[in-house]
Amino acid sequence: MVDAVYPGSFDPLHNGHLDVVTRAAKLFDSLLVAIYETPPKNVLFSTEERVELFRGSVAQLDNVEVAPFKGLVTQLARDVGAGYVVRGLRAGYDFESEFEMALMWRHLEPGIDVVCMMSALEYQFLYSSRIKEVARLGADIQGLVPEQVAERLNAKLNGS
Amino acid sequence: MVDAVYPGSFDPLHNGHLDVVTRAAKLFDSLLVAIYETPPKNVLFSTEERVELFRGSVAQLDNVEVAPFKGLVTQLARDVGAGYVVRGLRAGYDFESEFEMALMWRHLEPGIDVVCMMSALEYQFLYSSRIKEVARLGADIQGLVPEQVAERLNAKLNGS
Amino acid sequence: MVDAVYPGSFDPLHNGHLDVVTRAAKLFDSLLVAIYETPPKNVLFSTEERVELFRGSVAQLDNVEVAPFKGLVTQLARDVGAGYVVRGLRAGYDFESEFEMALMWRHLEPGIDVVCMMSALEYQFLYSSRIKEVARLGADIQGLVPEQVAERLNAKLNGS
Amino acid sequence: MVDAVYPGSFDPLHNGHLDVVTRAAKLFDSLLVAIYETPPKNVLFSTEERVELFRGSVAQLDNVEVAPFKGLVTQLARDVGAGYVVRGLRAGYDFESEFEMALMWRHLEPGIDVVCMMSALEYQFLYSSRIKEVARLGADIQGLVPEQVAERLNAKLNGS
Amino acid sequence: MVDAVYPGSFDPLHNGHLDVVTRAAKLFDSLLVAIYETPPKNVLFSTEERVELFRGSVAQLDNVEVAPFKGLVTQLARDVGAGYVVRGLRAGYDFESEFEMALMWRHLEPGIDVVCMMSALEYQFLYSSRIKEVARLGADIQGLVPEQVAERLNAKLNGS
Amino acid sequence: MVDAVYPGSFDPLHNGHLDVVTRAAKLFDSLLVAIYETPPKNVLFSTEERVELFRGSVAQLDNVEVAPFKGLVTQLARDVGAGYVVRGLRAGYDFESEFEMALMWRHLEPGIDVVCMMSALEYQFLYSSRIKEVARLGADIQGLVPEQVAERLNAKLNGS
Repeated sequence: MVDAVYPGSFDPLHNGHLDVVTRAAKLFDSLLVAIYETPPKNVLFSTEERVELFRGSVAQLDNVEVAPFKGLVTQLARDVGAGYVVRGLRAGYDFESEFEMALMWRHLEPGIDVVCMMSALEYQFLYSSRIKEVARLGADIQGLVPEQVAERLNAKLNGS
Repeated sequence: MVDAVYPGSFDPLHNGHLDVVTRAAKLFDSLLVAIYETPPKNVLFSTEERVELFRGSVAQLDNVEVAPFKGLVTQLARDVGAGYVVRGLRAGYDFESEFEMALMWRHLEPGIDVVCMMSALEYQFLYSSRIKEVARLGADIQGLVPEQVAERLNAKLNGS
Repeated sequence: MVDAVYPGSFDPLHNGHLDVVTRAAKLFDSLLVAIYETPPKNVLFSTEERVELFRGSVAQLDNVEVAPFKGLVTQLARDVGAGYVVRGLRAGYDFESEFEMALMWRHLEPGIDVVCMMSALEYQFLYSSRIKEVARLGADIQGLVPEQVAERLNAKLNGS
Repeated sequence: MVDAVYPGSFDPLHNGHLDVVTRAAKLFDSLLVAIYETPPKNVLFSTEERVELFRGSVAQLDNVEVAPFKGLVTQLARDVGAGYVVRGLRAGYDFESEFEMALMWRHLEPGIDVVCMMSALEYQFLYSSRIKEVARLGADIQGLVPEQVAERLNAKLNGS
Repeated sequence: MVDAVYPGSFDPLHNGHLDVVTRAAKLFDSLLVAIYETPPKNVLFSTEERVELFRGSVAQLDNVEVAPFKGLVTQLARDVGAGYVVRGLRAGYDFESEFEMALMWRHLEPGIDVVCMMSALEYQFLYSSRIKEVARLGADIQGLVPEQVAERLNAKLNGS
Repeated sequence: MVDAVYPGSFDPLHNGHLDVVTRAAKLFDSLLVAIYETPPKNVLFSTEERVELFRGSVAQLDNVEVAPFKGLVTQLARDVGAGYVVRGLRAGYDFESEFEMALMWRHLEPGIDVVCMMSALEYQFLYSSRIKEVARLGADIQGLVPEQVAERLNAKLNGS
């Protein structure tokens, strides 16, 4: 049984995600980071790698578990007894689709509430897709992702 | 000759579309629901299925026809003598691209007006893509789409 | 009895309003331009002036009436037997509050539909408040408002 | 000591607020509804009335207190020992200024987190200012506000 | 003769403005900060104070002048021979009205271009109105405005 | 050495791009139009074609160079000694992702500023993707792209 679920692709985890999960771990007694199982061709990191990277980054948070999942977030929440789904809010362009998704979740499972937390200002404009794009082009992405992620990203993209 | 055209992919038709078409059928003497012919790999339902499902859902509306089309909406409107293109407006994220598309249509065919109608509050956040996504994951989508669509969607996705 | 109502402050009427009313007058058999009665201190032009200016600008449209009103738009629509409220859509910042207002209208009077029409590209960014602001500062606002409005605006603001 | 603060003007409280406070009261052990003290000329209901109306509407929620306050929300949170400020999120136009305010709060008091909760779909477009506007014009606002608020609003606006 | 004009109310100047003016002073050979003359009741700082505060904050920028102005920005630009109007862009809610204003300027004076510069991430959500609001409530606004402004703001608001 | 870089896919160049580059060429002493090298399957025009089409369209602008590039925009700017990256702003839906990208660039290369210029009103809603879509469906896109681009686009899409 966990109190809340924080679902996402996390391909890869960045510091904005880490900020949200740290805040959520204070709000809830127990938190499950639920990582979408995605066909390998659609992600840079495999499901196992994404789980491992997230686990390595939240090792110091005792009440946080990390696990892969497939299916509906609402079904997962029901299965693990969670009453809340956590979402990180960032400025700008993803807000309306957040809303649309949250209202669908509520339609499917009225007993579950969506709790939105804001990442800190310095992570307001951080997106995994952009991080991968610039890392692929050789940019130094230290400070944007946990150190372990930076290493793995460089190794994967640049063979170094 | 029809008065207005209501174009879309409708893959599949949902209750928000049905709400808009019902309102538009009161506003215009005759209305053509025009369904984009799309290569099968890009849609869940074939063009024929989408036409059939829409026809089945508007059988009680005497002044509504449903037909497939390819090419430009503005060319279609001219071909069938329609002076109006109907669009459904929903809250949020698709508004600006609606605008951009409508201005392109007007550029191509100044004599055609875009008339936007709002679906009811309960359909404000309904999108075909999300419906397919959650149906694929096993969600019950009754109440979001016409009954006939729900059955066909379940049969197609879950073989039941 | 009229088919549709086009409500607004129109302080003053500009070319974007005129564009919308011209399009709406083609869509509906009869159209009532309904001008909010507003306390004089909140408007530049009195209710009578706004009615007169609008009437002068749509003299060539036989099926358009112009009248002041107070109270609820939905009550007015019911009183005159109109099934539609017309709104002009412009790019950008007024869309969400349009939505919120339209949903309130529908809540109050489910039998009335809101029909949104788009003004032409050249009027997409035209607002009465900005027009008054720049006219007050001495700008030439010809081409933004009907000629008669431009004259009256200049006379009122600059005593010329 | 309370866990979370839910600040606002609540002039008057509507069903969207009530929905958010009910959800927040489940998430937090104790919740303080903090009502801005505002000069009478800027509000319809006095501070005392707004406190009384909110108290009457949450009488069944044991862990919710209602009190007026002036000053900074962050100072209040610190004073009462709260680590969270609750905000209701609605579709559309108030999101960016929510963000801007929340980031200011975090700047002033880094130890306080903003938790955003979504009201149900039927309250997504509900605003106190619009409710007052239409009530003033004679609209029936039952179903939008708690019954007690509807009565008081009608009495105040229409002397009935 | 100056190359560019940077207009605004600057009531008061904050660090986001300072950031923009510093960047603009590198882009243009000469820059005029043009401060709207506003009736005292609508501003916290008088026109003279706002000019003095801005001058004091850009003393180290040799190619920047500060002056009050009234009337149209486009007329000012023409009067001083400037071909550019500088605007600062921030995330979120002021973008569309920026656009609308810029298009009006271009309509009035086609020869003048609007150049938008982005302030740094840490100033993305900084607004004079919010700064005054929280300062009035006793918040410490150091780090958000130049030191001289912080002192003057505190003195004015809190008599200290 | 160039002063500013204007990066993009330009698949194909349209009149909005041309408007921005013409304005930027007045603002900067020298300007490099930098065209992303993209795998052929993702674009309609090859890198060579896009470079050639852009060169043909700016032949009259002496201080503008056109070249392909791959990698990071910020690295390119550093390599060519440019202190500015130019972006065109259009109404609506691409603003927030512009912002997010610009903040990433600044993170990677703090010494480089992003300068946003607005295309004229008539190009505010012009997008290469829509132009290709309607051209593919047989629309006449004269007036939206340079003449040379229109010819090439028709030849490529319709073999005429």
